[in-house]
Amino acid sequence: MERINVAEKLASFGDHWNPRVIAELNGQHVKVARLLGAFTWHHHEHEDELFLVVRGVLTMELRDRTVTLGPGEMIVIPRGVEHRPVAEQEVEVLLFEPATTVNTGNATTDPRTRRELARI
Amino acid sequence: MERINVAEKLASFGDHWNPRVIAELNGQHVKVARLLGAFTWHHHEHEDELFLVVRGVLTMELRDRTVTLGPGEMIVIPRGVEHRPVAEQEVEVLLFEPATTVNTGNATTDPRTRRELARI
Repeated sequence: MERINVAEKLASFGDHWNPRVIAELNGQHVKVARLLGAFTWHHHEHEDELFLVVRGVLTMELRDRTVTLGPGEMIVIPRGVEHRPVAEQEVEVLLFEPATTVNTGNATTDPRTRRELARI
Repeated sequence: MERINVAEKLASFGDHWNPRVIAELNGQHVKVARLLGAFTWHHHEHEDELFLVVRGVLTMELRDRTVTLGPGEMIVIPRGVEHRPVAEQEVEVLLFEPATTVNTGNATTDPRTRRELARI
């Protein structure tokens, strides 16, 4: 039950597309990540996923449209929905999703797939 | 899959200790609330609860100590742990918790108990 400072957690690492776990509750993980560039198109079979932008501008591409998010804005991507996060400039995000969630979803051959996440 | 602006959601109401649901995923609710004054001591039997401060300073009283949180800081209160949120001045918070969570937990006779939450 310690105080968790989101900005301090984000400042503790510099790599992209490599989420860290900062809290766990009810079988869910709270993660932070730095994003830069275009990710891979993917979906999550069994998990809904929440993105909350902390810093920067995140473009969430969906197959039929694009949603742009600034700081303090969030989106929920329901399970099964294909999406591709794109960060033209670096973005810091907070993620809230089941502990079972793998970042690349069904795109398991993407080199940015992370199955073992650090807890910071 | 709309963009959800946390500050706009908080600006849409003014009362205290009356959380609104702004998103739902994986059986969990994301809520926002305005807090002012001291809440009631309580615990949640089956739910872990996350508080993320958006604006202001939240004092989280625990039976053995107190944790103070500013903007961008969070705490997870595990199920079964007694706590009392105190806001000396108005605080805006974001909550992550199971959809089953009642704000006053076991303190069901508190007049601020809210069982039916608005979805905004």
